[in-house]
Amino acid sequence: MSRGLFLTLEGLDGSGKTTQINRLAAWLKKRSHDIVVTRQPGGTATGERIRALVLDSRSTFLAPMAEMALMFADRAQAIAEVIEPALASGKIVLCDRFTDSTEAYQGGGRELGSEAVLELHRLVCGNLQPNLTLLLLPSFEASLARARRRNQRTADQHGQDEGRFEQEQDAFYRRVWQKYLEIAAREPERVVLIEGDLSIDEVHEQIVEAVAERLAGLAVGARG
Amino acid sequence: MSRGLFLTLEGLDGSGKTTQINRLAAWLKKRSHDIVVTRQPGGTATGERIRALVLDSRSTFLAPMAEMALMFADRAQAIAEVIEPALASGKIVLCDRFTDSTEAYQGGGRELGSEAVLELHRLVCGNLQPNLTLLLLPSFEASLARARRRNQRTADQHGQDEGRFEQEQDAFYRRVWQKYLEIAAREPERVVLIEGDLSIDEVHEQIVEAVAERLAGLAVGARG
Repeated sequence: MSRGLFLTLEGLDGSGKTTQINRLAAWLKKRSHDIVVTRQPGGTATGERIRALVLDSRSTFLAPMAEMALMFADRAQAIAEVIEPALASGKIVLCDRFTDSTEAYQGGGRELGSEAVLELHRLVCGNLQPNLTLLLLPSFEASLARARRRNQRTADQHGQDEGRFEQEQDAFYRRVWQKYLEIAAREPERVVLIEGDLSIDEVHEQIVEAVAERLAGLAVGARG
Repeated sequence: MSRGLFLTLEGLDGSGKTTQINRLAAWLKKRSHDIVVTRQPGGTATGERIRALVLDSRSTFLAPMAEMALMFADRAQAIAEVIEPALASGKIVLCDRFTDSTEAYQGGGRELGSEAVLELHRLVCGNLQPNLTLLLLPSFEASLARARRRNQRTADQHGQDEGRFEQEQDAFYRRVWQKYLEIAAREPERVVLIEGDLSIDEVHEQIVEAVAERLAGLAVGARG
């Protein structure tokens, strides 16, 4: 049996990843592909507990290095429990965030650097690489506005001066954004960059085009 | 203010670490030292949740690499939240298990290798080293018997054939044991090896002697 295809979706909070994963999953199912949809952090029982731990930390202190190690613990578990078995049995895996997110958020946003992230990925995840990564980057301004709305509750929880919190948040997301662009420039073969403020349908079209190309290239057999 | 002293206790399950940490803590307090006692995994709110996750995994599947990454997440949090602040303010930190445990259990026992553990320690923990490590190694047979009693419940939970489980367990603990000896041989300056089936008082005497020597050598000031 030929090995499956590993597809990841990446982008800032609120970039529309979830909507697009659902659309893509429906498109693939219609074409009789066997697919597995998962997300990081999360996607396994252990992973969902790690996810809760990380999200709860918004109201407590979590050291950036601890956060990064938790992301990799989650990922190692997901690879062993979900991703590798699915790929080995020829399925298509759609994963909402993978190591690019850790590089963008912890490496870029929290300024831990790309080198540490890539080295951890090598050590803990056997350097598993997606066959294709779809990176959704609406304009920075649009992304920031969406991320802000999502994180408003966090500012309230922190009880920080709202202006200062927003400034820090803007600088953080700017670094995440820059790191995503850096990754796309570094690995143009793997990463398809979907830029600009496109409609949901337009983004879906671009995604489907890129996925169809890989499916043809790798000749992953459709079932049924 | 001079930097404090970082002491770790290591050994197999049931080697008497906890008893000895309590005795050593009492001895140091009597001499007016400011001390902080902590343990790994655990020792912080985040760490206790990670500890629960790892212990619960005895009845579910936790990938070895995920387990190792969880240990380092716990450790990074403990360093940032407890250990570094205490050392910076001149305190003596007593820690029940540290990276040597990860090297012995995950590196040796689970056969992930020393290299990955030491590299993760460098990346995630800034390579923080204890000033002194007290390694308690009663005879292998005595250690194994104690570890077995402690882990009997695990065998029951696993529902495995008891004989096979015990065989696997023996081989696992043999590798942990060997790795501990390897660490002691590699770092004789840092690691004081307390071997053999000594009484609690005898072990305490050896520990106190080693600690007193470090205190004199590093001239950590007593308070009060």
